[in-house]
Amino acid sequence: MKSLIIIGHKAVTMPFSLNDLPGTAGRMDILCRCVNAALFLSHDLRRDVRVYLVLKGGSPSKLIRFDGAQVRYLSPDERSAASLVKKALEKNAQDFWTESTPGVSIRKGDFEDLLKELNKKVIYLREDGVDIRGKKFDVSEELLFVLGDHEGLTGDEEKIIGGYEHEIVSVGPISLHADHCIILLHNEMDRLEKRI
Amino acid sequence: MKSLIIIGHKAVTMPFSLNDLPGTAGRMDILCRCVNAALFLSHDLRRDVRVYLVLKGGSPSKLIRFDGAQVRYLSPDERSAASLVKKALEKNAQDFWTESTPGVSIRKGDFEDLLKELNKKVIYLREDGVDIRGKKFDVSEELLFVLGDHEGLTGDEEKIIGGYEHEIVSVGPISLHADHCIILLHNEMDRLEKRI
Repeated sequence: MKSLIIIGHKAVTMPFSLNDLPGTAGRMDILCRCVNAALFLSHDLRRDVRVYLVLKGGSPSKLIRFDGAQVRYLSPDERSAASLVKKALEKNAQDFWTESTPGVSIRKGDFEDLLKELNKKVIYLREDGVDIRGKKFDVSEELLFVLGDHEGLTGDEEKIIGGYEHEIVSVGPISLHADHCIILLHNEMDRLEKRI
Repeated sequence: MKSLIIIGHKAVTMPFSLNDLPGTAGRMDILCRCVNAALFLSHDLRRDVRVYLVLKGGSPSKLIRFDGAQVRYLSPDERSAASLVKKALEKNAQDFWTESTPGVSIRKGDFEDLLKELNKKVIYLREDGVDIRGKKFDVSEELLFVLGDHEGLTGDEEKIIGGYEHEIVSVGPISLHADHCIILLHNEMDRLEKRI
C-alpha cells in the first residue's frame, strides 16, 4: 500500500472550467497529471495506491482522495481526472470524507489535518534529497510520499513534516515536475517489489 | 541529442476537437502526454530533444516534429500540446517538413519514411527488452528511441525496425504507458550524463 500527497498551492476549491485547467483552475493540470502518474499502468490501475490532493487555492482548503482500489470512471487523460475532481468540488464538503464518485472522496482540511489523520512516517521528495536508488524501502509496509507542485513546499509545510518521522529523497539529478517524480518513485518501488 | 518517435495508430490526421482528445481525436491524449514527458523539466525544456509523432489514423499518414531547441507556446498541459498538433494539422502537409508554429513542423509520411530520413540505430522500448539500467548508452552520441502507443508496435512496424541496427530495451518490470516510459528513459540518460 502506497499513499501519495500532492500539494496544489493555487488549486481552486470550487467547481472550475475543464477547458482552462492551468489558468482559472489554479494549475489543476499538475494535480491531474499526478493522479494519472500515481494510478495508471498500461492496461490497469495501481490498486494499492491512494492519491491525496491538497487544494489550497481557496478557503477553506480541501482534500480530495483517489483510491486506486475503488476508483471508477477514470481515464488517463487530464480532463478525465479533472472531471472527477470537479464533481467532488460540487459536493458540500464536510470535516469528514464524503464519496463523490466511486473511489473519489472529499473533505474540508489542510495538509496538517491530513498528516495527522494518516499519522505515518513521511517520505518527502525534494531535489536535494538522498538518491532514492540507494534506499531500501520496505515495500511490504505502507509507505507515504509527499510532493509539492511547481512551487515546491513552503517553509510552514516543511515544518509540519518536521513533526513526523521523515526522510528526504530525490529521484534524480535534475529538477522535474511532480508527476514525473511519481513515475520514477513507482519504478523504484516496482523494482524492489519484483526484486530486480 | 535525443530523438523519440511515438507511433499513434489511431491518431487523426485532420484538425480535431480539443475537448475530446481520447475519443474523436484517436487517443491524441497519449501523444500529447508523450510530448510533455519528452520535453519538460521543472522550469525549463529539454532543448536537446526532438519528438516525432507518427499519426496513422488517417490517409495519408502524417509526421509531426517538436524540436525542444526551438519550440514556443508549449505548456505542460495536454491541451497545450494538442493545440500545437491541431495547428500543424491545419497546414497543407507536403512531402517535406513545413513549420506550423515555432519548433513544430509537419510533413506527409509514415514510420518507414521517418526512419529512412533519420537513418540511425534504433533503441526500441518493449516490455520484454533488456533492462535499461544495465545499458551503458553513449550519451554524447545522438540516440533514437521508438515507442508505441497503447497498442504497441505492429508486426510490420517491427519489421521496419529490423532493417536498421537496433536493440530492444525495457524500463522496468511492469507494463507502462508510453509517456511514463519516456520519463524513465530520460532519468536513465540524465544519470549517465551526470555520472551518478
